[in-house]
Amino acid sequence: MEGDHITTLSTPVMVVDVDIVKRNAEKMREHWTKLGVTLRPHMKTHKTLSCIVVSTLAEAGFYADHGYDDILYAYSVPFDKVLLDHRDALEQLRKRPLTDRRVWHVWLKLDCDNGRAGVLHSEPEALRLAQAISESEGVELTGVYAHCGNTYGCRGAEQIHAVAHETTTLVLQFMEKLKAVGISCKSSIGSTPSCSQPISDMAKLSEVHPGNYVFFDVQQSVIGSCGLEDVAVRVLSRVIGHSPHRNQLLLDCGWSALSLDGAGKLPTGYAVIEGHPDLRLLSMTQEHGRVEPLSGQLDYSRYPLGTLLTIIPYHACATAMMHSVYYVHSGGRLVGKWTPTRGW
Amino acid sequence: MEGDHITTLSTPVMVVDVDIVKRNAEKMREHWTKLGVTLRPHMKTHKTLSCIVVSTLAEAGFYADHGYDDILYAYSVPFDKVLLDHRDALEQLRKRPLTDRRVWHVWLKLDCDNGRAGVLHSEPEALRLAQAISESEGVELTGVYAHCGNTYGCRGAEQIHAVAHETTTLVLQFMEKLKAVGISCKSSIGSTPSCSQPISDMAKLSEVHPGNYVFFDVQQSVIGSCGLEDVAVRVLSRVIGHSPHRNQLLLDCGWSALSLDGAGKLPTGYAVIEGHPDLRLLSMTQEHGRVEPLSGQLDYSRYPLGTLLTIIPYHACATAMMHSVYYVHSGGRLVGKWTPTRGW
Repeated sequence: MEGDHITTLSTPVMVVDVDIVKRNAEKMREHWTKLGVTLRPHMKTHKTLSCIVVSTLAEAGFYADHGYDDILYAYSVPFDKVLLDHRDALEQLRKRPLTDRRVWHVWLKLDCDNGRAGVLHSEPEALRLAQAISESEGVELTGVYAHCGNTYGCRGAEQIHAVAHETTTLVLQFMEKLKAVGISCKSSIGSTPSCSQPISDMAKLSEVHPGNYVFFDVQQSVIGSCGLEDVAVRVLSRVIGHSPHRNQLLLDCGWSALSLDGAGKLPTGYAVIEGHPDLRLLSMTQEHGRVEPLSGQLDYSRYPLGTLLTIIPYHACATAMMHSVYYVHSGGRLVGKWTPTRGW
Repeated sequence: MEGDHITTLSTPVMVVDVDIVKRNAEKMREHWTKLGVTLRPHMKTHKTLSCIVVSTLAEAGFYADHGYDDILYAYSVPFDKVLLDHRDALEQLRKRPLTDRRVWHVWLKLDCDNGRAGVLHSEPEALRLAQAISESEGVELTGVYAHCGNTYGCRGAEQIHAVAHETTTLVLQFMEKLKAVGISCKSSIGSTPSCSQPISDMAKLSEVHPGNYVFFDVQQSVIGSCGLEDVAVRVLSRVIGHSPHRNQLLLDCGWSALSLDGAGKLPTGYAVIEGHPDLRLLSMTQEHGRVEPLSGQLDYSRYPLGTLLTIIPYHACATAMMHSVYYVHSGGRLVGKWTPTRGW
């Protein structure tokens, strides 16, 4: 792939302009060489060894090996996703028929007033698109897929039921319309709240697709999908500093371990600190968290340096993204570790 | 490490309660088995193959190999950081003398009204702690370290200079106090803004420690550390949907590719979309971004599906954290890739 233009990469992908990097690095080095001050570059932004990188650039052939090409090959296939909500995307599939008599398995993404991706259920185009998919050679309409992500705005089972009911009803109505024109395929809706607090009509669907429920989190407990006791994940953190002049504790847990999700949505800040309902995770930098009491003065004798605090994440998906290894325990005893997959 | 309590892990670390995971998984499976509906678990939260994990748990011996022990060994050393701002941490170091006549190299972290970690410069304890470090056996006071993170609140060179001046002056005053009691060591301050817009007095320091400047980002341009043209990183994204009923475009870039940093701080939303000052990155879910015009109606003919949009991140550190590979280009031509390090 060396030499290909970055616009040929599949997205999302992060790209780095090496010329600007060099310019920035040189400018800074010049600055401080001139002033006679040692420059100690902090690695937290790029987390790679620039010196090695520079020598690697000089040996660019290194990157032309077979394995590298393989990875790129996978990345260079555009429109490889099976969810579809636009006629242009269908055209792309038709232009790229699969070999060996295989067909594209397409789920039509339907927006049932959920405010996410999808063709709006009430648009005549929705039915026309389903028909076009089902009539296209090399393409099969496998199902109709709606994600009721608007359950995340719910508070309590009643509100979740209302959204689940609306989405389910609209999907089922759409299935009826399909049936009337002779099309039969699967149906699927999802979201952890609706699948945790389901309504009976959801039994008429072919599939559901919740995700978060394996871990749950504070957000799900606020929505009403679970209780706090159902949350399987924690971030362990230690007190690494006292800031009496700010009435704060300093933790070794910043957004690189917890994510910034949930900002300002909880009375206890970015998360819940287990067993300490009187504490608020006020703010985070990349590697530090600041904790203050909800009211009054901190009793520092309760939190000597090294004190372990157990943080229940606001959004487990976002927190999990920040970790390349999960340590697994049973009753507090480690039983193994999981390595999640990353990338696109 | 198998069998050790999770409290023995170095922090931050993410831990998973396998019993609650199993309970959640079983509850959900039961739910849908009962209703006769296929459960298609979404992998976005945990990103591991639960089935494989379960079989791995049954073969727990797998985890007792030498390499695994090695990793844990490194993690089990508490207080291994050389930055220090509390007497209790010094005590911990003294209790753990290094072997082979090696000494702990300690940087005293000083809070020069910066609102981050460190012992407050004006507290008598700051000087006493420095003396205690320098008098401790097996421990050496290597330097004084201040991070002027409050430059991130600055707008323009003048304000940056003011913070840099204050921090530098306070550090240098502290160095004078040390000198008066016979202590000599290094001094260091940092932050990309202050190191990008330095004042002359910073020449009197031993070191500086900026980090972000190799990449820069929109935040740094707003602060005044750089111009937008100095930003080396981008996230490339494609238009994957049209939502005319919401006057929005849908992108394949969510917070898993960009991070949530910068929320609400820019008129153009979470980032700057290069070449499209009329567009706002309004919101993101894990894998999707929603884009709307700053005003008026979107002209969808300008953004057919597949249109490449180039996103300049608000905070490069946060965006970089989300990527396990950086693709490197020169003038738009790929020249290699960088693999960042992760974890703690």
